[in-house]
Amino acid sequence: MVDTSEEPTAAKKKATIFVISGDFEKLFAAFSIAIGAAASNMDVSMFFTFWGLRALKKNERTGKGLFARMLGFLEAGDINKASPGKYKFLGLGRWMIKKMIKSKNVSDLAELRRTALELGVKMYSCATAMDVMEIPREQLIDEVVDSAGVGWLVEQAQESQFTYSF
Amino acid sequence: MVDTSEEPTAAKKKATIFVISGDFEKLFAAFSIAIGAAASNMDVSMFFTFWGLRALKKNERTGKGLFARMLGFLEAGDINKASPGKYKFLGLGRWMIKKMIKSKNVSDLAELRRTALELGVKMYSCATAMDVMEIPREQLIDEVVDSAGVGWLVEQAQESQFTYSF
Amino acid sequence: MVDTSEEPTAAKKKATIFVISGDFEKLFAAFSIAIGAAASNMDVSMFFTFWGLRALKKNERTGKGLFARMLGFLEAGDINKASPGKYKFLGLGRWMIKKMIKSKNVSDLAELRRTALELGVKMYSCATAMDVMEIPREQLIDEVVDSAGVGWLVEQAQESQFTYSF
Repeated sequence: MVDTSEEPTAAKKKATIFVISGDFEKLFAAFSIAIGAAASNMDVSMFFTFWGLRALKKNERTGKGLFARMLGFLEAGDINKASPGKYKFLGLGRWMIKKMIKSKNVSDLAELRRTALELGVKMYSCATAMDVMEIPREQLIDEVVDSAGVGWLVEQAQESQFTYSF
Repeated sequence: MVDTSEEPTAAKKKATIFVISGDFEKLFAAFSIAIGAAASNMDVSMFFTFWGLRALKKNERTGKGLFARMLGFLEAGDINKASPGKYKFLGLGRWMIKKMIKSKNVSDLAELRRTALELGVKMYSCATAMDVMEIPREQLIDEVVDSAGVGWLVEQAQESQFTYSF
Repeated sequence: MVDTSEEPTAAKKKATIFVISGDFEKLFAAFSIAIGAAASNMDVSMFFTFWGLRALKKNERTGKGLFARMLGFLEAGDINKASPGKYKFLGLGRWMIKKMIKSKNVSDLAELRRTALELGVKMYSCATAMDVMEIPREQLIDEVVDSAGVGWLVEQAQESQFTYSF
């Protein structure tokens, strides 16, 4: 018992996943790796910034100022509106990939996010991106642990067994 | 001789390279790093998913169902058809970059892949992406070691000295 | 004093950041993480290749041969001309994101790069990409430490606490 304070019981291996993209396939990969790592008993943190914030947004229009409102319009919608990085034209790519995934009984992004959360994956939003894009905390899903900055991210990455960026 | 069983001869440092992009420059970087790592005596695994599967595909049309066939049409061709992430218009970027690379006697992607394989780099395909995109094993090059899932990937990443994602 | 030779004073933790993209948000993230890591006393190296070379280029037209000149034209401009990965149309995205960043008093890319350099972040350019794109050393900013190849990169990554690729 005495030794456990030396070697903490909380010494789970860590993984940090950085998500800057809002592309369907990148989010799919990021959540899948998070789930796989959590399932193998790792302590997983995901950090979402820029386009990646789509993965945490509620389905509400964001932005107050002119430019943030324009961006809020262009990037409208929540995780279900994520398009693949190619063939975005008229939503074609999104429509195709959703059909394909469904026909194979593969989880969609919202389901992957839910599973990740159930497995204890911790999700953080980038404070700077929220500020610049004018996306306040209340427009992100309740499950977001906190907003965080680059200092926090570097600390996580240092302690991590591996990091991925998408 | 006895000691080698304690400290296994197989204790090579590991690197894992995750490839989700099919863009020329990303594949070029992924294979280059794989080659560099293998040349410095590391045990290198590459994992290809989504657009990255182009790097392992034979030059055959893929897909059975409507959507997979559409995607197979849009993503037709093997590694030699990889376009850069910019200036894709009418194949302009691909044409330009191939000309430039050739004029400098730099290896093209097919040559880099061959070199990587010769140096013992192990290439795995993502089982989920193969299922969703309807790309069966026989439409991938013979050198692919196996298809793999996220559990395998997490295990590799945990054991790796470094990971890269492209 | 004697002990310090055992545990070298130079035993700073290392981070390596690989930059293949020239997109505004990717460069923003790469420099931010570099700054965060350097600020927490890490030894940080950044390696720029392909589109990422924009971050090190002077504002001069590059390329001698036909194709390199075409690319030099398409990729004209220095770090201030970096566009976000989406909404590039007619420079709209770049204009928007610059306005937004300025209105929030967030640093722009040139400022982030300067801060990173002041904190001792070491920047390297990819020798192969410089050769292929015909961007000579004198067309990169003076602060670039050196050009480097994949062997160097693998060595850095091996010694690094974490790596990121953008």
